[in-house]
Amino acid sequence: MGGYSQAMVVDEAFVLSVPTNLDPAAVAPLLCAGITVYSPLKHYGVKAGSKIAVLGLGGLGHMAVKFASKMGAHVTVLSRSEGKKEQALALGAESVLITSDADAFKAAHSTFEFVLDTIGDEHDVSAYMNLLGVDGTYIMVGASPKPFSLTAFGLIVKRIKIGGSIVGSIKETQEMLDFCGEHGIVSDVEVVKAEYVEKAWERVLKSDVKFRFVIDVAGSLNADTVVQV
Amino acid sequence: MGGYSQAMVVDEAFVLSVPTNLDPAAVAPLLCAGITVYSPLKHYGVKAGSKIAVLGLGGLGHMAVKFASKMGAHVTVLSRSEGKKEQALALGAESVLITSDADAFKAAHSTFEFVLDTIGDEHDVSAYMNLLGVDGTYIMVGASPKPFSLTAFGLIVKRIKIGGSIVGSIKETQEMLDFCGEHGIVSDVEVVKAEYVEKAWERVLKSDVKFRFVIDVAGSLNADTVVQV
Repeated sequence: MGGYSQAMVVDEAFVLSVPTNLDPAAVAPLLCAGITVYSPLKHYGVKAGSKIAVLGLGGLGHMAVKFASKMGAHVTVLSRSEGKKEQALALGAESVLITSDADAFKAAHSTFEFVLDTIGDEHDVSAYMNLLGVDGTYIMVGASPKPFSLTAFGLIVKRIKIGGSIVGSIKETQEMLDFCGEHGIVSDVEVVKAEYVEKAWERVLKSDVKFRFVIDVAGSLNADTVVQV
Repeated sequence: MGGYSQAMVVDEAFVLSVPTNLDPAAVAPLLCAGITVYSPLKHYGVKAGSKIAVLGLGGLGHMAVKFASKMGAHVTVLSRSEGKKEQALALGAESVLITSDADAFKAAHSTFEFVLDTIGDEHDVSAYMNLLGVDGTYIMVGASPKPFSLTAFGLIVKRIKIGGSIVGSIKETQEMLDFCGEHGIVSDVEVVKAEYVEKAWERVLKSDVKFRFVIDVAGSLNADTVVQV
């Protein structure tokens, strides 16, 4: 029954300790979306006082805003429209930059130390890279399958670097969980029963989830339903 | 008379001290090609024991080989043909990887910590990026005006970063000159008289120079010739 099991045997080296003050359902996505952004934030040196722009406010992006703000960084969420502003601020962002506002976008050129790019679709990486100042770091965690285009000058003139990251180690994941326990951070989740997964999947495809679905396996109607999943 | 002057007045903050054991003619290109590669080698952390591949054996590349090998790194020169092998080894490279040898190139995948890319023409950056192992760094100093293409996966899976660099500060340039004095490093140059510049330029366009032309202004025939330049 794989990931839908209610009990399993594992090697102790791969067991994590979840802080008891956190809701287990809301902890679940930390082990994927959470560590995927926590690890590069630490690795690439985001810290108190850092100025970071977060691109994409989905499962990854909303965790990035929570982590980076609790690390003491100044977080700006990049959004195409005003619609996500309130949400971004509630998650811990200091400000929202509306990317469709050409003047505002241009005024923000060269003002960030970090851009964290969580977008999984094709987009103009070079345009967002312009937001970085000298020695800025562009962190790529959204994995669009399509290639993107850069110019050498875009990297050279401001000594900018662009780096990727994928999930994290067990050690780092434990560190993240402890950080979450200390700061009361969890993922924003919508808990659903197993029989809802078809509908949930449709909504995922429409980006209609804030910000992760979690399946309540134990609470689902009966074992048959679970197996059908 | 600009750069062809024999004397000029400058602010003391921009004066560098050239080690007396070095030939001034062979020092001249250090102030551009030299610092352009020295600075990123230091900035991105190339040190004793590092494994670095140098792409392009021109003015920048030959300096990179000299610097990196004297820093104690294991230097491999990437070359399309066997033709540059002897030269690369003489400059301090430990080995030469013939990139047209598909098997050898594939065997070298994921074996380098650094790739220093000095190529100014269009080329397949992703292919060379495959040479990097986990946490590898791709350093871009050759400034091809054409965009190049990357995939997010290419950066994400091995947490690779790609960064640019352009020349260096006065402080770093002095540090480089001192390093050169200590290790007896200069650029390989061909010293020409001012009246040779037209011919020299034709040869530069054909990459027919090992590795930099230096104009002997003081030794040129007469002041008129210099002014015509």
